Amino acid sequence: MNLDAAFSALADPTRRAILTRLALGEATVMELARPFDMSQPAVSRHIRVLSDAGLITQRVDGTRRPCKLAPEALSEIDRWLAMLRDALTRNYDRLDALLAEMKNSSEEKNHE
Amino acid sequence: MNLDAAFSALADPTRRAILTRLALGEATVMELARPFDMSQPAVSRHIRVLSDAGLITQRVDGTRRPCKLAPEALSEIDRWLAMLRDALTRNYDRLDALLAEMKNSSEEKNHE
Repeated sequence: MNLDAAFSALADPTRRAILTRLALGEATVMELARPFDMSQPAVSRHIRVLSDAGLITQRVDGTRRPCKLAPEALSEIDRWLAMLRDALTRNYDRLDALLAEMKNSSEEKNHE
Repeated sequence: MNLDAAFSALADPTRRAILTRLALGEATVMELARPFDMSQPAVSRHIRVLSDAGLITQRVDGTRRPCKLAPEALSEIDRWLAMLRDALTRNYDRLDALLAEMKNSSEEKNHE
């Protein structure tokens, strides 16, 4: 999966709503078009973007082509965000350690 | 924060690298430009996009304008992804329950 394409696909409220719907279970383009009050071609274009980004997959079931979420793509996004959050937390921990050290040495000075 | 703008800002590898750098601590545009081998105006443009999306903040410190990550923006993205993952998990749980029910009723049939 390509993080550029994934984040770019997520930058649209209709595509995020389609993903939220698909998290509840498979749906065809026709089933997706109904609640969104969109034309099937418009939904199909969004499905293409989500599919190209690896966020959903489409399988053939007779004449139906149901779409489903690709959980491993979400995992990759989660991993990237977790890496960022971990770096941020480690940085806070370093600052905390530094502040504690400064506090200790100033207390030691006061006791001198 | 606007999720459209945030995801759109994340859809660029240089901007993701800038965020990773800022997770380690504050940095000025000049400090950011150095390791990325980019001109300061190019970095400034990326900083503007990240700042408009609410992913970073910039403070004034004399003549320096250090940038830092805005952790609450990351939290909002996390919340959206968690909502999606929860819906997905609940759906899997429902499928598991349904499969267990089908298994039980077929076993009961075998015992009749």
